[in-house]
Amino acid sequence: MKISARNTLKGTIKAIEVGAVNTEVVLEVAPGVEITAVITKASTERLGLSVGKEAYAVVKASDVMVAIE
Amino acid sequence: MKISARNTLKGTIKAIEVGAVNTEVVLEVAPGVEITAVITKASTERLGLSVGKEAYAVVKASDVMVAIE
Amino acid sequence: MKISARNTLKGTIKAIEVGAVNTEVVLEVAPGVEITAVITKASTERLGLSVGKEAYAVVKASDVMVAIE
Amino acid sequence: MKISARNTLKGTIKAIEVGAVNTEVVLEVAPGVEITAVITKASTERLGLSVGKEAYAVVKASDVMVAIE
Amino acid sequence: MKISARNTLKGTIKAIEVGAVNTEVVLEVAPGVEITAVITKASTERLGLSVGKEAYAVVKASDVMVAIE
Amino acid sequence: MKISARNTLKGTIKAIEVGAVNTEVVLEVAPGVEITAVITKASTERLGLSVGKEAYAVVKASDVMVAIE
Repeated sequence: MKISARNTLKGTIKAIEVGAVNTEVVLEVAPGVEITAVITKASTERLGLSVGKEAYAVVKASDVMVAIE
Repeated sequence: MKISARNTLKGTIKAIEVGAVNTEVVLEVAPGVEITAVITKASTERLGLSVGKEAYAVVKASDVMVAIE
Repeated sequence: MKISARNTLKGTIKAIEVGAVNTEVVLEVAPGVEITAVITKASTERLGLSVGKEAYAVVKASDVMVAIE
Repeated sequence: MKISARNTLKGTIKAIEVGAVNTEVVLEVAPGVEITAVITKASTERLGLSVGKEAYAVVKASDVMVAIE
Repeated sequence: MKISARNTLKGTIKAIEVGAVNTEVVLEVAPGVEITAVITKASTERLGLSVGKEAYAVVKASDVMVAIE
Repeated sequence: MKISARNTLKGTIKAIEVGAVNTEVVLEVAPGVEITAVITKASTERLGLSVGKEAYAVVKASDVMVAIE
C-alpha cells in the first residue's frame, strides 16, 4: 500500500508503553533522533509491534508544525 | 516556550512552496531524512522562514502513525 | 506496508480539485457514501490519482469524532 | 449545529471500549464498512453513546489520507 | 447535531481569506482572543460564512497542545 | 521557541485528569471560556503542569473546524 502521507521515517522501536485504549511507541529514526507515536492498543497488537523491531513513523504533512528559536 | 508536543526535530529548511493560503516547508532533520510540513502562509511569513535556515519540525504524538513492511 | 491507522476504507475516486499546494480528493466508499480528503498536490501526483481509480481513504482513529442528532 | 467538517457518515455503534481518559467507539457506516473513533470518556458520557445507537462519524478533510495498492 | 469534540467556542468571524482549495477563517471568541481555522473553500460556501457572522470554533481535545513559558 | 501554530491562547489550568498514557488538561482562556487538551502523561510531567498554573492552549489552524447554528 502506498499512502499520501508525505512523511514516512524508517526506524527501530525503542520503547512501548501500553494503556487501556492507547499505546505510546517510541521509534529511533536516526542516531539520537526519536519520534513518539500514540496509537490504539488494538493497532499495536495487530501490527505485532515490539521493542527492537523495524517500523516506520508516518505523519501527514498538515500535522507537522515548524518552530524557530 | 516549552510545548507538550512530544516530537521536536531540529533541521534545516530545504525547500518552501507557497500557495494562496498554505505553504509547504521541507526540513532535513538528519542526513537524508526529510520531513514536510504544510503550514499557513501567514505563519511562514511571521516566522521569517527561508531556505537554508535552521528550524524545528514539531509533531504531536497523537498525529504519528506506525507502519511495518 | 501495514499501517496503524484503524480506518482504511476502499473506494473509487469521484472528483479531484487541484490547488497550489493542496488537492481535494473525493472517494465513494459505499453506494452514496463519500469521503473527502485534502492532501498535498505532490502526493496526488506521486500516487498517480485520477477520477475513476480505486483508492483507500485512511484515517487515524484519534482524528474521528462522533456526533448524534 | 452545522459543521465545516466535510465528512459526516451515519452509522450504528457496534462496540465501545472504555479507558481512563479515552474511549474507542466503532461505528458501522455501511454493511461491512466500519469506522473507529477514539474520543474522550467524558464525551462518550455526555453524548450518551451506547452499542446499537445511531451516530455519525465526523472527520475533517485535512485528516483523511489517500492510499493505493 | 451534538458532537464529541470537547471544544466549541462561540465567536464572531473577523476575517476570511480564500485560496484555491482552502480558506482561512479568523474568529474572535472573547475580547482580544482570536482563533484561526483553515477549512475547505467548499465548507466555507456551504455554511455561508462571512465577516461579522456568529460562528463556533470547534476543536477535538486530542488536537490541542499545552505550552508553558 | 516560536511555533507556526496560529493559535496560542493564554489561560489557567482548571483541572487535570491522569490516565495510563494520556492526560486531560482543562484551561480557562477567558472568563467562562474553557479549552480541553488531551496530551501524553509524559508531557504533563515534563512541563510540570498542575491546577492553578498559567499555560497556553496551542492549536494548529488546520485542526480547527467552524460551525454555525
